[in-house]
Amino acid sequence: MTALAFQTPVQELLGDVEARMRAQAEGYHPILKEALNQLLDSGGKRVRPTVVLLASSMLGVERQLSIDLAAAVEMLHTATLVHDDLIDESQMRRGRPTLNATWNTPATILTGDFLFSQAAWLGAQVGSAEVMRMFASTLSTIVNGEIIQIFERNSLTNRQAYMNRIYAKTASMFELAARAAVVLVGKKREYGEPLRAYGYGVGMAFQMVDDILDFSSDAEHLGKPAASDLRLGLVTLPTLYYLEANPDDARLKQLQMGNKLQEDDLAALIDEIRASGAIQSAKLEARQLVDDAIAALEGLPITPERAALAEMAEYVVERLH
Amino acid sequence: MTALAFQTPVQELLGDVEARMRAQAEGYHPILKEALNQLLDSGGKRVRPTVVLLASSMLGVERQLSIDLAAAVEMLHTATLVHDDLIDESQMRRGRPTLNATWNTPATILTGDFLFSQAAWLGAQVGSAEVMRMFASTLSTIVNGEIIQIFERNSLTNRQAYMNRIYAKTASMFELAARAAVVLVGKKREYGEPLRAYGYGVGMAFQMVDDILDFSSDAEHLGKPAASDLRLGLVTLPTLYYLEANPDDARLKQLQMGNKLQEDDLAALIDEIRASGAIQSAKLEARQLVDDAIAALEGLPITPERAALAEMAEYVVERLH
Repeated sequence: MTALAFQTPVQELLGDVEARMRAQAEGYHPILKEALNQLLDSGGKRVRPTVVLLASSMLGVERQLSIDLAAAVEMLHTATLVHDDLIDESQMRRGRPTLNATWNTPATILTGDFLFSQAAWLGAQVGSAEVMRMFASTLSTIVNGEIIQIFERNSLTNRQAYMNRIYAKTASMFELAARAAVVLVGKKREYGEPLRAYGYGVGMAFQMVDDILDFSSDAEHLGKPAASDLRLGLVTLPTLYYLEANPDDARLKQLQMGNKLQEDDLAALIDEIRASGAIQSAKLEARQLVDDAIAALEGLPITPERAALAEMAEYVVERLH
Repeated sequence: MTALAFQTPVQELLGDVEARMRAQAEGYHPILKEALNQLLDSGGKRVRPTVVLLASSMLGVERQLSIDLAAAVEMLHTATLVHDDLIDESQMRRGRPTLNATWNTPATILTGDFLFSQAAWLGAQVGSAEVMRMFASTLSTIVNGEIIQIFERNSLTNRQAYMNRIYAKTASMFELAARAAVVLVGKKREYGEPLRAYGYGVGMAFQMVDDILDFSSDAEHLGKPAASDLRLGLVTLPTLYYLEANPDDARLKQLQMGNKLQEDDLAALIDEIRASGAIQSAKLEARQLVDDAIAALEGLPITPERAALAEMAEYVVERLH
């Protein structure tokens, strides 16, 4: 795993987090170890544990506690991905087969449950009931968002529903990553809200950028079909902007009624969204959230870690270039 | 829900636990509330929260903490049942449709995950990192046991494998229920091991009795086909005793090799196990575990709650009469 520039201040700690996560399967059935290794081998940039470590180091959290906290956040994130991929029947993630592509449904469900239990165990290691409540509430928020997506898919075509969905899916975990450490140093009053706001902005922008890349990248680069969300009838930010500019588009009306589009109609719609100003408007919105996140850092201790948190926020939108 | 005799000392608290659990879906999607209510409406005797409440009251744990702890244990148990029933494709539990019989797989997985998150939230309410670790480890143990059952089904025909399996499946949660409270009153050294041993004995006996009833009851009374485990190729205590007395039984050799039996061979085998001394031997073993559990209570504070814990242990084997 090559470190990104903003990971430099915590690069060594990130290695410890990795080792901590892998050690969690010790003493359990070899298949759980294999599953955990497969999941961790498939990489990911570890942005969530990086946020935890930067915030923790900035605030002076003890080394081992920050490692456990970061490992707990990444473990919780990994657990949710296991069940997500199963539910969505995704076969690939980051260019590798998903667990559900490799194993049957029972083994995949149980592996996810095991990772939840290990996330809770790691979270308990930091010794704060409030941190545990944050973890539990974050998982509730994520699951609740997925339930809404399942049961109300065809009515999720307005901006508020989109914002709620990406908050639940992504920003809630970034909030957790950014603010959990403040509890451990008793600085909730001073730094709790700034760090929450940072996590919110970065997390919302992160998901918006993913949703933009889903439109603007080609299939080969994404490792999945382009505009995969729209193909599933799911309206994301670029489509929302296109819809605001073209409120009478018959194809989008079809999608809003829960009907599938024919492949050539869908392909034409995707091309038109790409050619419209919708992508650019969505980029500007993500950029604004990143600016808000960076502004929220004002007032936090001026340290290399704070600078790295700002760099990380920039990185989120740089993925668009 | 009619209280059993041993529940009398904590009957009012059990009502509070019920209300506490139902309140956990407030603020989330209505479908999660509906699911939680459906699960709680389907009853169950609430033996696990009863153990928590009796142990907590005996040790003088503060009222609200004992309610949260009991609700957390029952919520964790309920969450595991949701995923279990999905994995086993069970259609009925306690004479009612399971969640997976009502909803699709994604909604069932997510409801289970939601209940895990709420169990963690309730567990965090008691404010002890050690209790949280116990919860997390218990879930790891349960899941690990299920993984073993899936991946090694055909080699699970010896006594040690059976004991490990029912420990993971049932006794680990009873241990948690019995001993979590000691941490909250700083009495781990004096009372930790006796209460663990009590939970172990009651939990092991509880599962053995379930396994015996699976053989000795008729299908109507069970709400599922008799000897359902053996039909799935799963060897439980009565079959183990039968196997010890008849080591060369060709039908059991078939099962041990992972082969299915023909229906008339299976029916004959079930009849022979029922007619043999195997059921009686299994009953004696469960009885011994209950006696051990009651003996473990020696040395704990002499209170009505301690007496009720002993009664509860008796109740576990009384279900056989």
